[in-house]
Amino acid sequence: MSGAERLIYLPLGGAGEVGMNAYVYGWGKPGKERLILVDLGVTFPDMETTPGVDLIFPDMSWLIERAVRLEAILITHGHEDHIGGIGHFWRDLRAPVYCRRFTGHLAQRKMEERGNDPEQVHVVEAFPETIEAGPFQISFLPVSHSIPESSALVIDTPVGRIVHTGDFKLDGAPVVGEPFDAELWHDIAADGIKALVCDSTNVHVENPGRSESTLTNNIRDLVLQSSGMFVATTFASNVARVKTLAEAGREAGRSVCLMGRAMLRMVQASVETGVLTDFPPVISHEEAEDIPRENLMLIVTGSQGERRAATAQLSRGKYLGLELAEGDTFLFSSKTIPGNERGVLRNVNAFSEMGVNVVDDSSSLYHVSGHANRPDLEAVHELMRPQMLIPMHGEHRMLRRHAEAGEAKGITSKVATNGTMLDLTGEYPVVCEHVETGRVYLDGAQKVGALDGVVRDRIRMALNGHVMLNVILDEEDEPLGEPWAETMGLVETGRSNAPLVELVEAEAAQFLARANDKLLTDDEKLESGLRRVVRQVSVEEIGKKPEVTVVISRLA
Amino acid sequence: MSGAERLIYLPLGGAGEVGMNAYVYGWGKPGKERLILVDLGVTFPDMETTPGVDLIFPDMSWLIERAVRLEAILITHGHEDHIGGIGHFWRDLRAPVYCRRFTGHLAQRKMEERGNDPEQVHVVEAFPETIEAGPFQISFLPVSHSIPESSALVIDTPVGRIVHTGDFKLDGAPVVGEPFDAELWHDIAADGIKALVCDSTNVHVENPGRSESTLTNNIRDLVLQSSGMFVATTFASNVARVKTLAEAGREAGRSVCLMGRAMLRMVQASVETGVLTDFPPVISHEEAEDIPRENLMLIVTGSQGERRAATAQLSRGKYLGLELAEGDTFLFSSKTIPGNERGVLRNVNAFSEMGVNVVDDSSSLYHVSGHANRPDLEAVHELMRPQMLIPMHGEHRMLRRHAEAGEAKGITSKVATNGTMLDLTGEYPVVCEHVETGRVYLDGAQKVGALDGVVRDRIRMALNGHVMLNVILDEEDEPLGEPWAETMGLVETGRSNAPLVELVEAEAAQFLARANDKLLTDDEKLESGLRRVVRQVSVEEIGKKPEVTVVISRLA
Repeated sequence: MSGAERLIYLPLGGAGEVGMNAYVYGWGKPGKERLILVDLGVTFPDMETTPGVDLIFPDMSWLIERAVRLEAILITHGHEDHIGGIGHFWRDLRAPVYCRRFTGHLAQRKMEERGNDPEQVHVVEAFPETIEAGPFQISFLPVSHSIPESSALVIDTPVGRIVHTGDFKLDGAPVVGEPFDAELWHDIAADGIKALVCDSTNVHVENPGRSESTLTNNIRDLVLQSSGMFVATTFASNVARVKTLAEAGREAGRSVCLMGRAMLRMVQASVETGVLTDFPPVISHEEAEDIPRENLMLIVTGSQGERRAATAQLSRGKYLGLELAEGDTFLFSSKTIPGNERGVLRNVNAFSEMGVNVVDDSSSLYHVSGHANRPDLEAVHELMRPQMLIPMHGEHRMLRRHAEAGEAKGITSKVATNGTMLDLTGEYPVVCEHVETGRVYLDGAQKVGALDGVVRDRIRMALNGHVMLNVILDEEDEPLGEPWAETMGLVETGRSNAPLVELVEAEAAQFLARANDKLLTDDEKLESGLRRVVRQVSVEEIGKKPEVTVVISRLA
Repeated sequence: MSGAERLIYLPLGGAGEVGMNAYVYGWGKPGKERLILVDLGVTFPDMETTPGVDLIFPDMSWLIERAVRLEAILITHGHEDHIGGIGHFWRDLRAPVYCRRFTGHLAQRKMEERGNDPEQVHVVEAFPETIEAGPFQISFLPVSHSIPESSALVIDTPVGRIVHTGDFKLDGAPVVGEPFDAELWHDIAADGIKALVCDSTNVHVENPGRSESTLTNNIRDLVLQSSGMFVATTFASNVARVKTLAEAGREAGRSVCLMGRAMLRMVQASVETGVLTDFPPVISHEEAEDIPRENLMLIVTGSQGERRAATAQLSRGKYLGLELAEGDTFLFSSKTIPGNERGVLRNVNAFSEMGVNVVDDSSSLYHVSGHANRPDLEAVHELMRPQMLIPMHGEHRMLRRHAEAGEAKGITSKVATNGTMLDLTGEYPVVCEHVETGRVYLDGAQKVGALDGVVRDRIRMALNGHVMLNVILDEEDEPLGEPWAETMGLVETGRSNAPLVELVEAEAAQFLARANDKLLTDDEKLESGLRRVVRQVSVEEIGKKPEVTVVISRLA
């Protein structure tokens, strides 16, 4: 490796998955690069692989070890998979945070929640305002997405300009925020783009994306046609959609009530930061109780079936004094994220049992995506004509498909997944290092490595149940009394119809009775022998091989 | 309730869900009806709600208690959600099992596996062959589906004819099995249909269903265009699809190798029972190792991402001597069942990393459903003009939508979910009883009620972790030595950086030291006090409230 200065790109999260975005850029001599971090997101746990986990972060160790070289943290927008880790890692990184106003509002809150100084979040105006971060000049280029003030980053480096798109779509009429300005993008690329680092999540969608504003009439017509109460759910952060829904309600002569903490918080943040103007007046849920149902519209959280959100609460009955009934309409102005299907359908079926008419996005009339589809991505490739295309944010299949699309246009493209460091200095991207990456779990108040075994043990208990066996040995290493067993998550009786714990205790007692002095003085051997006995009895009796904890107490 | 004879319908499973079908019909005086059971299926567990469970059955208690009145068990087809419970419950029901030949082949195996007499399975020829079962005459009417020899049941009762469709589609060219015969269905309905009890799973699909045979050319073209190895997965029981795939391979000059036990078993069963003729010759996986990859086609199990099936094994590397490589093609000739997305995408991304071209059903070119869509259902309503329509097999939203479709045609329709007994004797279906139903889990070798708490405890351990605390009290009820704690599924150290178990032990020791004689002699109070201590320390240290097992050993 030469000692010359170089431009590096290193994804720590988001490249190889949808979620937990974290991308590092650096300039300098190898090992001495000055660094910036773009986004610091989280991803969400699931019962199958991460039961009991609260949040999932990218493993930031590489950057934490090099934090003295970190010049800035830049946040493209306020979605959790881009901003969610900021409060959890700031103390380890200690670099100033830059973002636009609305995102800053959210970021400051996240800093405060984890005891960090919100003043470390600096609000930057949109392009052409530029900040300096070591060898980089960076500006925030407005893009459309499904949350206000999303930005691509224009990153000028000593060897040329990088455009890092963040999550984006091309929307000429986004309801809230700036419309897509092809001319501006063209100007930005006028002197050449070294690298386009580009959102890949919708690369498999073959039709061009649709504008947020195409929904306005559809939603208005649906609300106008509906009798009974009208309830709509969408992502709370999709403030444009919330506005469209609220305006449809107002036009239909309905009072609008927002429900769910995130919904109230996001609308409030939008109003306070000035991104949302002339939002229709809303009423509280207490006021809503007194409004005839045909004059009422609720806009609620929980489009993904989250068990504690407003949608799920309404699907189970009364929530904050309001209750759905036959003839009401419930609109999912949202798509179901893969993996959330069961939770969403649980709610839909509960509404069906109440006689509520459920409308989802299967007609494509009531939801559009916030990401650029393949034709849109190709249009951007064409517009920017970058020297190289680095597909970013997406599962491997998406990154690969995106690279193929670039190559098809004659643009050098490189798939680099988490931990793959690219040297972008020359004409082509070159893999120059592989960095250990992975996931870190927030488990209660603690961070746990994904491979630490803590969650693995929980999964094993969930699959196999747990048997605890207690043995007391006296001063002469002789068993004192009988062994005592307890189980959790196992049937009480099996084949022989005797309690499983009694059979375990009896077999353990026999094992101890047969044990010689040497075995009785060796905790490790005794434990593994007793564990074997417990497993064997369990398999014979109930056909399961449980997790076993043996506790040997010595009265020595 | 009058003592007159009546015709009843009672779903025990499948009405309110997709899966575990079980429908009871009866004729006679109330409480004395002679009964038949149509299908006895299972559904599959998931990590979120049923970790560690092996299979899920409908709660058959109602029928088991009335087994002496059960005349027959009729199985419409061989999918697990219709046949999977037969071996597990036959001993409790002890009625003869009737089905067609291919289904019988599978049913006999299921009987044997659970130690039942396979001779209890009786093979019935297709309509017009009729069996007698108490007051019912029943024949098996061939329908198309995604497994050979699916059947609707024509059930003649003292008050008219019922058609119970089972799972079905309308297919004029199903590749394997009889094409849909509208004339025959019309004839069957000529004297009037009392009730059409009808599959609802695809009622939300608005376009007419497509024939299995529409895939033949698409699949053939794809195989012909592909270089490298060609691998396809589909449901093993979709023997028509397996045949189409194998023939496409043969036409492209490829040797065909079937992989995965279910795949081999289903093709073998189809050949043995005569439903599958002229299946292309296949080679073993040992032979496949010697075939150049461009001349090889694998047809494999695991379209749903199952971790131990052939697809997942291939996604992880070498499987039975075969390994995918860059330029190979992998076809999912299947759709992903909701809930299985994550597992399937895990495989797709692994293939993407290998450079394998993955083709899925998003183009609709390589997969068709086995169920009737809404226009097809409406065509059947029209063809049969039943006195009443009872939507069957589907989530509540599907049953409801199906009933709406019937009502729109002027056909009396009634949604009856599991446990809702309908009296079909008169002109309209009338709810006459509600029966306790639910789910039963096969957990290892034992059946467990869904509400028994066993699985709930496992979920809690998975979410919260588990702390075990041991306390020994001597003959005078005084603590002997220090309490001893063990944890499973929890981080070892928290806020104070001391081991959690040591902090728990210290707090428990203090609690015991402060305890008065009355508390020390009361196991229950002592246990709940110690549990509180453990939880409190855990919350303070690691921010989690674990499950706690306290074991108090007394040397009395």
